[in-house]
Amino acid sequence: MTRRQITGFSNPTVKFLRSLREKKHRKAAGKFLAEGLRLLTDALECGHVPEMLVMSTTRDPHPLLDQLERAVVGAGGDVIETSADILSKITGKSNPQGVAGVFGEFDTSLASLDRNSAQIWLVAQELRDPGNLGTMLRTGDAVGAGGLILIDDCADPFSVEAVRASMGAIFTQHVARATWDEFLPWLRSGSGQLVAASLRDAVPYRGAPYTAPCFIMVGNESQGLPEDYEAACDLRVTMPMRGRADSLNAAVAGAVLAYEVLDSLGS
Amino acid sequence: MTRRQITGFSNPTVKFLRSLREKKHRKAAGKFLAEGLRLLTDALECGHVPEMLVMSTTRDPHPLLDQLERAVVGAGGDVIETSADILSKITGKSNPQGVAGVFGEFDTSLASLDRNSAQIWLVAQELRDPGNLGTMLRTGDAVGAGGLILIDDCADPFSVEAVRASMGAIFTQHVARATWDEFLPWLRSGSGQLVAASLRDAVPYRGAPYTAPCFIMVGNESQGLPEDYEAACDLRVTMPMRGRADSLNAAVAGAVLAYEVLDSLGS
Repeated sequence: MTRRQITGFSNPTVKFLRSLREKKHRKAAGKFLAEGLRLLTDALECGHVPEMLVMSTTRDPHPLLDQLERAVVGAGGDVIETSADILSKITGKSNPQGVAGVFGEFDTSLASLDRNSAQIWLVAQELRDPGNLGTMLRTGDAVGAGGLILIDDCADPFSVEAVRASMGAIFTQHVARATWDEFLPWLRSGSGQLVAASLRDAVPYRGAPYTAPCFIMVGNESQGLPEDYEAACDLRVTMPMRGRADSLNAAVAGAVLAYEVLDSLGS
Repeated sequence: MTRRQITGFSNPTVKFLRSLREKKHRKAAGKFLAEGLRLLTDALECGHVPEMLVMSTTRDPHPLLDQLERAVVGAGGDVIETSADILSKITGKSNPQGVAGVFGEFDTSLASLDRNSAQIWLVAQELRDPGNLGTMLRTGDAVGAGGLILIDDCADPFSVEAVRASMGAIFTQHVARATWDEFLPWLRSGSGQLVAASLRDAVPYRGAPYTAPCFIMVGNESQGLPEDYEAACDLRVTMPMRGRADSLNAAVAGAVLAYEVLDSLGS
């Protein structure tokens, strides 16, 4: 197989790859980066072949890497070999895992979702931390959710940090982005129960009357959900708070609720 | 009240405060930084008065801040006023919340814990991410846990990032640090059930026979728990994994288990 060797930091391909660490460049190119053999193998098994594969000259040989390389070449993609140093500059991580891939961004329209394909959907409003976003994708994968719907101004699901924290779930979960004014009419145009953790007018989260498809919504890390978003929910639930705090980390709250809903729906 | 004004980056106090962002300097000084009015107010209400209070000249006036200042002065501490720019250099955050405090590190010996003071304890082994560590403290506060026990080589609970992610729970939760070889004999010297999520020889986590005090253990973000640590547990539980992944984020797994144990123990 032919591999292109790149040795210079100023090479245009290296510049392009590094630019994908910034949201505006990802958006302009419609592409994102994912790193690590395990994650790229997960992607491949889910039918996502990287358009470009970047390998470090110091990588460990591995049959899965050979398989990945064959898939990329077979799909007409590029395979690039470069130094560990350049690869770590590309991914912004000091210990790169020896391999990274470039993927085309997915369709993130609400129209791309089939709400009846899963019993659980996660919804996040103004979630700003890419680590929390990736963690929610990972939790969604674990509970068999259909995907994650990002409301209003959230972190970018295609950032290197979010992709990394998702541990591959970016390739198994659907992701949609919408404003609240787009989301609510879409939700009400079909079946779906909107649920949020709340301190107002709420029932205990254990044993609450969840129904599928259940949309579990969490709010911004600092502000929580706006009051009118909570009011629009079909079900508001409370979780025990035995200490001084009145809230949980957003990704944690979403996960505790999602596991409760999973148990409740008996799926 | 007397406030000391500091205007220069090279001032020794500024240098000292900035040094507290590094673990070795925190350890040498036995002190750590916490930022934000809410967090400092939580600390005060839990009986922790900062030894030094650092305020930005551009802070918003607030009665809670006045109360904080009186408490620090009353306890013989220092109050320092400096620029927003210097304060953000100290805390390493571009939008500092206008106020930060220096606290003496707490006793983190196993001997400092009263295991029967709570029904739930969280245990983390080689947890490397300070955000995950702080999130576990926050979850511990929410479920009424006694504290967090850090096994082997974990992130520093007194790092600015961990303190920030704890949302004040660093002041309400006990923290202990120990090696596995110290922890296990300590645990076995009294009552206590050690529980971990596991794929081996495990029962479903819902409805498992939890008993208090229940020690919920999670493993390293990449490796999980070593096999012999799992084998030493009194109870191994499985959580549903409906997707491709076979694990959750460590802080998420701990939280889902902790809420199940909280419900089970009927506390």
